[in-house]
Formats: sequence, structure tokens, C-alpha cells
Amino acid sequence: MPGPMATAAAEACLRKGMDLAPFCLTGPDIEETEIEITDPDTKRSQKVTLVPSTKIGSLVDKLGGVEGTVAIDYTHPSAVNGNGEFYVKNRIPFVMGTTGGDRDLLMKTVTSPSPHYCVIAPNMGKQIVAMQNALEFLQTQFPASFEGYTLKITESHQKKKADTSGTALAVIDSIKGMVGPKCTFQQDEINMLRDDASSKDFGVPTEYLEAGHAFHTYTLTSPDGSVEFELKHNVCGRRVYAEGTADAVKFLAKQVEEKGDGGGKVFNMIDVLEAGAL
Amino acid sequence: MPGPMATAAAEACLRKGMDLAPFCLTGPDIEETEIEITDPDTKRSQKVTLVPSTKIGSLVDKLGGVEGTVAIDYTHPSAVNGNGEFYVKNRIPFVMGTTGGDRDLLMKTVTSPSPHYCVIAPNMGKQIVAMQNALEFLQTQFPASFEGYTLKITESHQKKKADTSGTALAVIDSIKGMVGPKCTFQQDEINMLRDDASSKDFGVPTEYLEAGHAFHTYTLTSPDGSVEFELKHNVCGRRVYAEGTADAVKFLAKQVEEKGDGGGKVFNMIDVLEAGAL
Repeated sequence: MPGPMATAAAEACLRKGMDLAPFCLTGPDIEETEIEITDPDTKRSQKVTLVPSTKIGSLVDKLGGVEGTVAIDYTHPSAVNGNGEFYVKNRIPFVMGTTGGDRDLLMKTVTSPSPHYCVIAPNMGKQIVAMQNALEFLQTQFPASFEGYTLKITESHQKKKADTSGTALAVIDSIKGMVGPKCTFQQDEINMLRDDASSKDFGVPTEYLEAGHAFHTYTLTSPDGSVEFELKHNVCGRRVYAEGTADAVKFLAKQVEEKGDGGGKVFNMIDVLEAGAL
Repeated sequence: MPGPMATAAAEACLRKGMDLAPFCLTGPDIEETEIEITDPDTKRSQKVTLVPSTKIGSLVDKLGGVEGTVAIDYTHPSAVNGNGEFYVKNRIPFVMGTTGGDRDLLMKTVTSPSPHYCVIAPNMGKQIVAMQNALEFLQTQFPASFEGYTLKITESHQKKKADTSGTALAVIDSIKGMVGPKCTFQQDEINMLRDDASSKDFGVPTEYLEAGHAFHTYTLTSPDGSVEFELKHNVCGRRVYAEGTADAVKFLAKQVEEKGDGGGKVFNMIDVLEAGAL
């Protein structure tokens, strides 16, 4: 904190009835300060003291123990592995929303010598993960069921995002399986929109052109053109990821409570989804 | 017959190498007449005599028994239950493509006192059924994963279609499971388009306004409006259903042949899809 993604996750936790720990980590160059987090919907509010990452060692004492605490991690990729080690060492269950870092090392940290309670996922948007999973199911269950169909993809993101949408790439993999081995679609055929005018034409609200958005449209058309399937998933801002994160926290807390902290397990968003309403 | 859907299914059967029975049912007010069915692709052709539904009792005699015959049912919703009883009474395996009627009664008719060989599906289009299955998977695997989301549905069909889209009803069931027990969506909230002007605005090509089309758009929106998922499946004409129907007939004939007509079973299009190439 007070990064926008971590703050959005904290607000979602307040919205879903959880309490924030009174201390959290911030960048090494930020002074120890108290900030106030307010959920715009419920107006629930809590004060939290930012502790610079250089004083990470003092955090457990400051918290007066970690029982009932779940850490949420949205930080720079360079901090992923150090934070992972800290959580494991101090027996703090955590939800890792940060991408990047050394993922193999992270998985090793949380599994050996014994598994640690955590949720690690590259995408915290529950509904998006569910949709991706359904497309994977389709290509597995009915491979080549859309044989002969033509694929078209357009995606729009804020200008600052240089690379192709990772979600689009994962979805394309599934759709290629649905179309079957004769599918010729190549990654460079994705219509990437990265300028305000095109994004606006594609339906992105003006206030999210810069603030961050992820709009995707996939179209499958039959050889004779008589049948068309279209899937859109359009996300504005961070709330979908923040709420998925808060759900992951609830899920993890329940796991710890039910199975005791003698155990441990590494979960992903599919596990959170399978748990149903939270 | 000679309704357009029944005729398209008969053409697809000819196209896939099957033979038509020399007699078929028609409306009560139509004279007993002979018509010719020709598949436009293969030019295979066969003569069929239309028997008015008032003389349904004579049909089995006219056919000289029913062995090796599978009935295809595309009629008015009001005839569904009577036809179902007729097929069961005369031990004629059937593929029911007609929607509407009393579906609970139909299921009772085909299951008690013992199961009857039939394929009952509100939609015979393979890709559409595959998509429906993915949505069923979603609601089963990830119940309430779209909790709080609002559902909006618009569907357009040719003016002559009296009832609500059966596909829309099946898809709504799945989506309601995805939204969870708090979903308040009611069937009468479906925006049904049945006039040319509205259908055209919805994207239906002019030549399919009368000829038959099935356009569906489902939209799921998060409580704060920041996330939107949209699924469209737009079908022009009847070929996609006709070919699926012919595949269902092939599938059912194979079941009867392999398992004998001492038994019976009620199938749907998933069973047909899972049977693989036909």
C-alpha cells in the first residue's frame, strides 16, 4: 500500500465485512505514515499504518502475532520472492496477486519442506478465470466441434500496456482446440487497440481510457457465414480483481480455520471458484 | 411436413445417405398429397405422401410396420404431447425438435412405465449445444461465481415462431446457477423480438427476417457496472439444426440397433455429440 491495486483489494475486504490489519507494508523509501482506507460503497473505513519494507522484520511484533491474519500481496515483481519467504517464515497465510518474479522459486518456497497456506494466481478476476476454464473444458470435451469456423479477435487496453493481452493468448489457445487442427489463426492477427480513438470506438468509457481497461471480443463464424458466435469480456478498472482477491482471502481464512494451522496447502483461483459463494 | 424445418431435416437425411419413409404427418386441414423432397447439394430426391394428423391412426399401417423407422418431430407446440404419446404407443423411436408443449408431461410419457428410445432437445445445432454444455459446466463447477451480476437477454426469431426460444430458456437455467440463489431473473424479462424492424436493428440480415433466424445475446453485468460479459449466438436459416437433427437420427438408429428394441432410453444432444463422428 498505498498502490492502487492493494488499496482496491483492501477496500473490497472492508466491503465484504472483513477487518484490515492495522499495519501493512509499503515501499522502502516511504515514511512510516498512517492512512485511511474507505470503501466507497459501504463507507466502512479503517486506519492502517504503512511500514517501509526495510522494517519488514518488525511487522509481526507490531501486529501482536499473526493469528487470523491473511496477507495480500500486490507489489513489484522484484519483491515477490522475498515476501514469499517472509510469509512462510512467519506462518502468515497469503494471497499473491503480484505477477512476475521467479515463479519456480516461489512455488518451491511455499511447498518445501511442507506446504504453506496460500492462494497464488496470475489473474484474480474470478469471473474471467471461470470463463477461461469453460473454454478449456470445451476444447477438451468437444475438440474440433467448431471445425471450419473462422476466428477474429479484437482487444483494447490502456496505451501504457505494450504487450498483447495474456488473457487473449490463453483464450486463443482454447478456441484453437475448439476449431481443431486445421485452425490457421496466428497471434499477429489479433487486432490490438492501444490508442484512445480506437478504444473509444470499441466501447471503452472515456474515464477508463487511461485509468485502465481490458476489453476483449472473440468472433467465430461458420464457413457459409450462417452461424456466428461472439464472446465479449469487458473490464473497467480494478474492482473485479480486487473482489476476487477479497474472496480468495475469505476462502483461505476458512481453510486455515477448518483444517488448522498444523497443515497447509497451495491453492489457485479455480479452488476459490469451486468453493462457491463466499 | 411440408413445414420448412421438417423439410430441411429431411433434406439433411438424404444428404447424409438415409432414406425417407414414404409417408409423413402434416396438419389436420391439409389434403393427403404426394410431395418431392430434394437435397440441394447431392440432388438426392424422394417422394413422400403427406398424411393429415386427423388420420394419424392409419400411419403405422401405411408404413407397413415401423421397424427401422425413426420419426423426426418439427410441429406446432400444441401437437408435442399427442405426438409423443403416439410414438410411444406405436414403439417408434423419435427425435423431438419441436419446443413448447407440456415438457413435464412429455418426459413422463417417454419414461413411464418404461423408457422409450428418443432424442429430446430444444436445440439441434451442434455448436450451440456445445456452448450450452460449457455453461452448464460453469454453473455446476463454479456455482454463484457471478454472484450479484445482472442478466439481460434479447432474442430474435422469425415472426411465425410463437413461443420463447427454448435455447434461451436452457441457457438461462445455467446462467441462473452461475449467478447463484439470489438471481431474480424471470422468464418474462426476456426481450423477445418478433417484428421485422426490431430484428433488423438487432443485426438480422433482411433475407432471413422471414426465412428463419435465431439471434441471441446474453449480457451479464457486475453490480457496479465495471465488468461486462456478453455471449452472442446468431444463426441464419436452418441448415445447422437440420444437420444436427439428421445426426441425432443416425445416433438413435444405432442405439436401437445395438441395444435392441426391448430396451429404451431418453437422450439429448450431448449424448449425440459425445458419440463422436456420425
